[in-house]
Amino acid sequence: MDFSSKLLENAVNEVSQLPGIGRRTALRLVLHLLKQPTEQTQQLSESLLRLRETINFCKNCHNISDTQLCEICANPNRDESIICVVEDIRDVMAIENTSQYRGHYHVLGGKISPMDGVGPGDLTITSLVEKVKSGSVKELIFALSSTMEGDTTNFYIYKQIEGNDVATTTIARGISVGDELEYADEVTLGRSILHRIPFESSLKNS
Amino acid sequence: MDFSSKLLENAVNEVSQLPGIGRRTALRLVLHLLKQPTEQTQQLSESLLRLRETINFCKNCHNISDTQLCEICANPNRDESIICVVEDIRDVMAIENTSQYRGHYHVLGGKISPMDGVGPGDLTITSLVEKVKSGSVKELIFALSSTMEGDTTNFYIYKQIEGNDVATTTIARGISVGDELEYADEVTLGRSILHRIPFESSLKNS
Repeated sequence: MDFSSKLLENAVNEVSQLPGIGRRTALRLVLHLLKQPTEQTQQLSESLLRLRETINFCKNCHNISDTQLCEICANPNRDESIICVVEDIRDVMAIENTSQYRGHYHVLGGKISPMDGVGPGDLTITSLVEKVKSGSVKELIFALSSTMEGDTTNFYIYKQIEGNDVATTTIARGISVGDELEYADEVTLGRSILHRIPFESSLKNS
Repeated sequence: MDFSSKLLENAVNEVSQLPGIGRRTALRLVLHLLKQPTEQTQQLSESLLRLRETINFCKNCHNISDTQLCEICANPNRDESIICVVEDIRDVMAIENTSQYRGHYHVLGGKISPMDGVGPGDLTITSLVEKVKSGSVKELIFALSSTMEGDTTNFYIYKQIEGNDVATTTIARGISVGDELEYADEVTLGRSILHRIPFESSLKNS
């Protein structure tokens, strides 16, 4: 693409570095901003800069937070002896939306993935292991996505905390509520048969 | 969505105001920036701000340009007696990419669209009509998209310059090069039959 303006080209180049945004989409977004009042671009730029420069992570669970301790960790009504291990803030938000969980979280910041150059040292595993070793944790719930990387990460943590008096569980995999069996993939359907639960317990949260 | 950080929420709100970007995508983009070095966010913010605040339009053709007169208008080798009327800079870039056009452009900045609150006064039609009335223009090529709004705009301009000694043409509509007839829509195929051209002229630019 040949641009008639160097400024425009720079802006398009920067925007197209975002994941999933190609140069055509970037141009469309930038031209949109040009048609809006200058304030919108100012607010966009400022909000991104302010977030990036003052970003803070909860010192307990490593979730993104404006305060030293995030709202969940600071809430005395939440059970700190149960910790749900998740990849990032989006998973915390998804679980919080269910209103079914009253424990704490531990945000790893990613999954072990040698292909992407992410090793255990890049994640917040050490602080999780320390929490477990301090003896204050009764249950650790693994809620990473069930991919190769997720399973590897789960297993790595499991090995690190082996021998400590802590129960480890993983979220249930199975057919989505409302889904039809015939369209489910074999692995999921197979697991949901293997890990079937007493009918009475299925009545609890329906 | 409940955010654990007000700063994060602000950033997501601002990003999701861009067209075609919902709150989930916005969150994904913002989290991506948080994983990158601070410089990337700084460069992104600065390039958008600098573009928005110092944006300049060519005083002749109204295309985005860093200089008073854009490169095309300033080029003495281009024929200023032929003007191609387009909607925005993307159309200029698309036509320039073909290397088939050596005339000037006139960027309207949109199409007449009462539904979106865009009237003739919001576009650069007055300066186009003045150019035509000055007598320096031999041909006006309408290259707006063939939608209701595009046709309305073409017709409005056509009426404004009626009576002046200027030829008006419109870009050819027809089957795309390489396309198969059976998959073409009826309107396009119909037009390509109606506006058929001598076989010899089709050999020129093949």
